[in-house]
Amino acid sequence: MLDRQNVIKDLISSNNSKIVMLVMDGIGDIPNEQGVTPLQKANTPNLDFLATKSDLGQTIPVLPGITPGSGPGHLGIFGYDPLKYQIGRGILEALGSDVEVGEKDVVARGNFATIDGNIILDRRAGRPATEESAKVVELLNEKIKQIDDVKITFYPGKEHRFVVKLTGEGLGDKLEDADPQKEGKPIKYTTALEPGSEKTAIIVNKLLDKIKEVLKDNPKMNFALLRGFSKYPDLPQFGNVFKLKAAAIAVYPMYRGLAKLVGMNVVTTGQTVEDEFNTVKEIWNEFDFFYIHVKKTDSYGEDGNFENKVKVIEEVDRALPILLELKPDVLIITGDHSTPCLMKGHSFHPVPLMISAKYTRRGLSKTFDEFECVRGTLGTIYAVDIMPLALAYSGRLKKYGA
Amino acid sequence: MLDRQNVIKDLISSNNSKIVMLVMDGIGDIPNEQGVTPLQKANTPNLDFLATKSDLGQTIPVLPGITPGSGPGHLGIFGYDPLKYQIGRGILEALGSDVEVGEKDVVARGNFATIDGNIILDRRAGRPATEESAKVVELLNEKIKQIDDVKITFYPGKEHRFVVKLTGEGLGDKLEDADPQKEGKPIKYTTALEPGSEKTAIIVNKLLDKIKEVLKDNPKMNFALLRGFSKYPDLPQFGNVFKLKAAAIAVYPMYRGLAKLVGMNVVTTGQTVEDEFNTVKEIWNEFDFFYIHVKKTDSYGEDGNFENKVKVIEEVDRALPILLELKPDVLIITGDHSTPCLMKGHSFHPVPLMISAKYTRRGLSKTFDEFECVRGTLGTIYAVDIMPLALAYSGRLKKYGA
Repeated sequence: MLDRQNVIKDLISSNNSKIVMLVMDGIGDIPNEQGVTPLQKANTPNLDFLATKSDLGQTIPVLPGITPGSGPGHLGIFGYDPLKYQIGRGILEALGSDVEVGEKDVVARGNFATIDGNIILDRRAGRPATEESAKVVELLNEKIKQIDDVKITFYPGKEHRFVVKLTGEGLGDKLEDADPQKEGKPIKYTTALEPGSEKTAIIVNKLLDKIKEVLKDNPKMNFALLRGFSKYPDLPQFGNVFKLKAAAIAVYPMYRGLAKLVGMNVVTTGQTVEDEFNTVKEIWNEFDFFYIHVKKTDSYGEDGNFENKVKVIEEVDRALPILLELKPDVLIITGDHSTPCLMKGHSFHPVPLMISAKYTRRGLSKTFDEFECVRGTLGTIYAVDIMPLALAYSGRLKKYGA
Repeated sequence: MLDRQNVIKDLISSNNSKIVMLVMDGIGDIPNEQGVTPLQKANTPNLDFLATKSDLGQTIPVLPGITPGSGPGHLGIFGYDPLKYQIGRGILEALGSDVEVGEKDVVARGNFATIDGNIILDRRAGRPATEESAKVVELLNEKIKQIDDVKITFYPGKEHRFVVKLTGEGLGDKLEDADPQKEGKPIKYTTALEPGSEKTAIIVNKLLDKIKEVLKDNPKMNFALLRGFSKYPDLPQFGNVFKLKAAAIAVYPMYRGLAKLVGMNVVTTGQTVEDEFNTVKEIWNEFDFFYIHVKKTDSYGEDGNFENKVKVIEEVDRALPILLELKPDVLIITGDHSTPCLMKGHSFHPVPLMISAKYTRRGLSKTFDEFECVRGTLGTIYAVDIMPLALAYSGRLKKYGA
């Protein structure tokens, strides 16, 4: 795909307008047994009124048929080609666990496992309770602080999961997973896939031996598998690329982390949608781009809970006047991907998009839902097209060519 | 264009679902003098019912404005970027004449021509009857069996056309056409365009002299022009790329040949659409992807025969229950390009696409025609996006990124 950032970089000019991007995670859906989607079912007078004055469309997050994870889904709407820029699984797990990652760090996802001798009996150590595995993480932090000149830190996760961070000079992340993937197989040490990661491989393999030694008396969590080794990705910074001072308002660590990766300013907010919108109000004069993340549309989609997904949409709609009263020059409402309740997971379906601004073509739509978006004035575009449109509607993109 | 195959190759997983791709050749059209297209005119209760439950869209075969031949048209719907992969004209002509082509072969299209001395008087030798030129082909096969260590075989075609196949070691296909393209010019020998084709150039030029000698007493067909030298293209094989066991059901040799080029299993079938669908039924348990080719929508489009194009669509609709009773997990109905009756030829117009599956967004369309497809849930996409969608709707594509 053509890198939009290269095309627009010389066209961007600054002005004082404000852009709000409201992301309802996993908002897109497919009809339920009654033939309606949550967006169709929800009572949304504010979104519908906005639709009459906005340009609607639908976005393809990556390519038709490709179901994005949260990483590629967000990169797309942030204006980064998700096929060009990739975020390692270790980094995403770290971000989701609120682990700070810096440029000298390598992080990996960990699984506590049960071994007998060197054979892996259970890759998830019987799915221990989160509190139980947190205690093991505490023990590891106490017993293993450093290997050679590399600092080691463990962070607890849910059930058998944890994150490990290596901090030091000369570390790389081109390593095979230290995980044979299957039970009944012997434990697997890592191998460097390039010379720049050889030191890291040595450290990781010493670490595995050390973990085994420390945990040898634990009946179930007596070993750990490590995978998805990742360094902090070197992404172009949002402020430089789009010449916008951006704030991120998100409740969940992973989305705060994703925003931080692209260089947004992550601000503190409350737990509800209303809290998030009020945070935007509080910091309105300090920034000119506001990314707001609403998580629970996705969570209820993942649970297959249609009624609660509807309720979250209605909650957003009720709170929307807080944003509207700020009179943003451009208000974008979209999602990072679809999460159909019937599928209980992310999907490949296109994502609704609505852009409200001064110079929209408008007038074609009466409500905001998947079907109005299909037939909206913007047509079917790629998620990476949203940011150039945001700049254009805010009057920040100069003419291309004479 | 981005190669979709590179993106999806690590995302494909296998399952037991079945995908049917029904290709109505040249199905897309433009309104006739009465303002309707064949798809609108045809009485198609089955297609229309399917449309209410399906995702519709329209595909761009290559790029907007580009009219594809059958080769690029099919490569696109088979999931091969038609700008990256190209099939030589000699190969297509050979496939259309049911000529077996192997890896040691070079094939070319031949025209019988009339010369006087070395000057070409008629590049088509007065368009001889097919039976008449077939006799000349027979004579050539009798008199010219080998040149140096290369075996030569001639195959009859329609009117002045034939195919010649060279079989031997060290042959290449980077050769200029042995055809001055215009009448009144002297005959033209070929030249190798790279060292790997020099042996072939020598053989071809000797072959031209030999043909001239053998045909010297024929009043009209006394020479031959050769062009489109092509080796068997080295295409990634469909089964490896998409991890599908694919069957091709097609009446016409060219489409059986195209399917074979990408590695599909070409099965024997009858002459009618019903025969083709019954063949699918017979082999249902042996494959998980079924490409079905219906030729006559294109043939009647090429003839400008609107009423007969309508009848073929109705024939497909009547036979459709045979496919529907098999309950394919994914049923794709589309074409390889448009062949508007008014234009009597392939065109660049987008092509209708309908995908019926479990998790469609559905509900937006009442009939299957060009206009419902424009406004369908899939939007306007590229033909190469169809295969990733087929895999996605069949549950075969894992999530991209975490």
